[in-house]
Amino acid sequence: MSIKTTILGSGAMATACSILLTDHPDQSVTIWARNPEHARNMSEQRENRRLLPGVTIPDAVEITSDLPAALDGADYLIVAIPTEFLRESLEAIAPELKENRPVISVVKGLETGTFQRPSQIIGEILGNRAVVALSGPSHAEEIARRLPASVVAASGDVALARRVQSMFSTDRFRVYTNPDLIGVELAGALKNVIAIAAGICDGLGFGDNAKSALMTRGIVEMSRFGVSQGAESTTFAGLAGIGDLITTCISPFGRNRMVGERLGKGETLDAILGSMEAVAEGVNAARSIYELADNQGIDMPITAEVYAVLFEDKSAVEATTSLMLRPPKMETPSFW
Amino acid sequence: MSIKTTILGSGAMATACSILLTDHPDQSVTIWARNPEHARNMSEQRENRRLLPGVTIPDAVEITSDLPAALDGADYLIVAIPTEFLRESLEAIAPELKENRPVISVVKGLETGTFQRPSQIIGEILGNRAVVALSGPSHAEEIARRLPASVVAASGDVALARRVQSMFSTDRFRVYTNPDLIGVELAGALKNVIAIAAGICDGLGFGDNAKSALMTRGIVEMSRFGVSQGAESTTFAGLAGIGDLITTCISPFGRNRMVGERLGKGETLDAILGSMEAVAEGVNAARSIYELADNQGIDMPITAEVYAVLFEDKSAVEATTSLMLRPPKMETPSFW
Repeated sequence: MSIKTTILGSGAMATACSILLTDHPDQSVTIWARNPEHARNMSEQRENRRLLPGVTIPDAVEITSDLPAALDGADYLIVAIPTEFLRESLEAIAPELKENRPVISVVKGLETGTFQRPSQIIGEILGNRAVVALSGPSHAEEIARRLPASVVAASGDVALARRVQSMFSTDRFRVYTNPDLIGVELAGALKNVIAIAAGICDGLGFGDNAKSALMTRGIVEMSRFGVSQGAESTTFAGLAGIGDLITTCISPFGRNRMVGERLGKGETLDAILGSMEAVAEGVNAARSIYELADNQGIDMPITAEVYAVLFEDKSAVEATTSLMLRPPKMETPSFW
Repeated sequence: MSIKTTILGSGAMATACSILLTDHPDQSVTIWARNPEHARNMSEQRENRRLLPGVTIPDAVEITSDLPAALDGADYLIVAIPTEFLRESLEAIAPELKENRPVISVVKGLETGTFQRPSQIIGEILGNRAVVALSGPSHAEEIARRLPASVVAASGDVALARRVQSMFSTDRFRVYTNPDLIGVELAGALKNVIAIAAGICDGLGFGDNAKSALMTRGIVEMSRFGVSQGAESTTFAGLAGIGDLITTCISPFGRNRMVGERLGKGETLDAILGSMEAVAEGVNAARSIYELADNQGIDMPITAEVYAVLFEDKSAVEATTSLMLRPPKMETPSFW
């Protein structure tokens, strides 16, 4: 029996998902694009020219801006809408989404202001339903080019996570299940702050030792924060934790790392943000996470220094010194 | 009271340690170099021209090939001799080393054949004494240039680890203590096998997703092996574990990663090893670790594929497919 999945969103990750799913001959996929012209172009050109130029979208993928047609017969929904547009986009189409289909979220980040995770926003607007977060080191472009990747399918509904695992698995895409939806979603947002710190390291020319130590200690404080919000610490040692963090910190193209690199080279935040087209989520995340951690007494030294560099005019070099000169410690945090 | 440390060995890491220690005005350091000419050159030129060109060795560092003079009044010994020469070098000078000074080891790797850790070799030759392993993401060149780094001082003797922590800590070198000497030493050897796999990824042009996933899953199997040998799993989530692994896998200069990259590009192991001056420890380590894991029934899928590529003529692409097509799993290993 053929499984039909409808993807809400038509960006790079939506396109990558459509390729993964139709690599299984028994699955059909429809991409719903809000913009009719964009849908028509993608459908005719079999390519997402702006975001994934050169990657052919398989003929088996339907692309339409007609939402009822896209949803007709769908067994699963994939939500592939950036966090900043997630709420308004879902609200606009919520009346069409009443059917209680399971949702697979590939959205990373937290909502500015409310601090809600993607699955919480989805639940609030679409009503409570099973949600699986697909996360991990997963640049869409590499996935779409069928380079190997491994991710987690995270859900409290373990049977559903297993179904999603089998829907996506190919000989170049390995999926592990993970029951910790909270941890996986938080990791996908917290990493952006550490990526800014990694960029600062790059901008200051600090080398591999510093950057590797930063990721290692970064995941410790990400985990500490996550555990305080109900996540499992083990999640942060996995693909959605350290795995995604490594990718985000080593890839030269990420926006958050790039903001950090330019800060490290001495540019001001205003100048950097003014010159960027897209949002660097880590900048807002640094403020929210710092304030929450500060309120709740959670020790996040790297996040605190990133906050100070971003919003309190602390120099990147001073921030480094502050980090290095904290009181000496034993390594093993109690909750690992 | 001034602390005197004598460093056995005069390579890059020995030089880096001498710089760290003499950044504390109350500490004196003597480097013992086996070769008199080398000692004289380093002493006169204040530079290790072959291994750390351009890095000035502080005037406070004494350099000599006269072992009794070097040892006179020493409170601590640092052993900075590569694993492959460790046993014979220590045996040659053991009669001079009877005094029961604590030993700080910066040696990484396992002895080929015996599979012994550096601290075991040190104990066997010098007699049982307190040993601290200093490990983590620690390219000597970056440390010597005073770029920031964070490492662990690992020892069952926690008070000693704390003393070493304070001897080495500066505003650019942060030291955490860790009680798990076994785990820290094993991690420093096991990582070389995963680094070969990371190099294979690079050689095949696999991108950041694949490499990050490989490090994440690599540390899981390193930890699994470590735990079977009496290590703590948490150590592998720390600086000597994932931290050092990241550095080893992302640095373009490491020998083990380079062997992998050339394998990934299609060269044969014989051709690669024939063209290299220095030993790539991961090649021998892959054999020993694979055989031990296989005997003891420890699941190490990445190590097994590296072994197959190195010694059984399996192609790197086939090895990747084997890894990706293993039975689907849940992410969280029981011991994390």
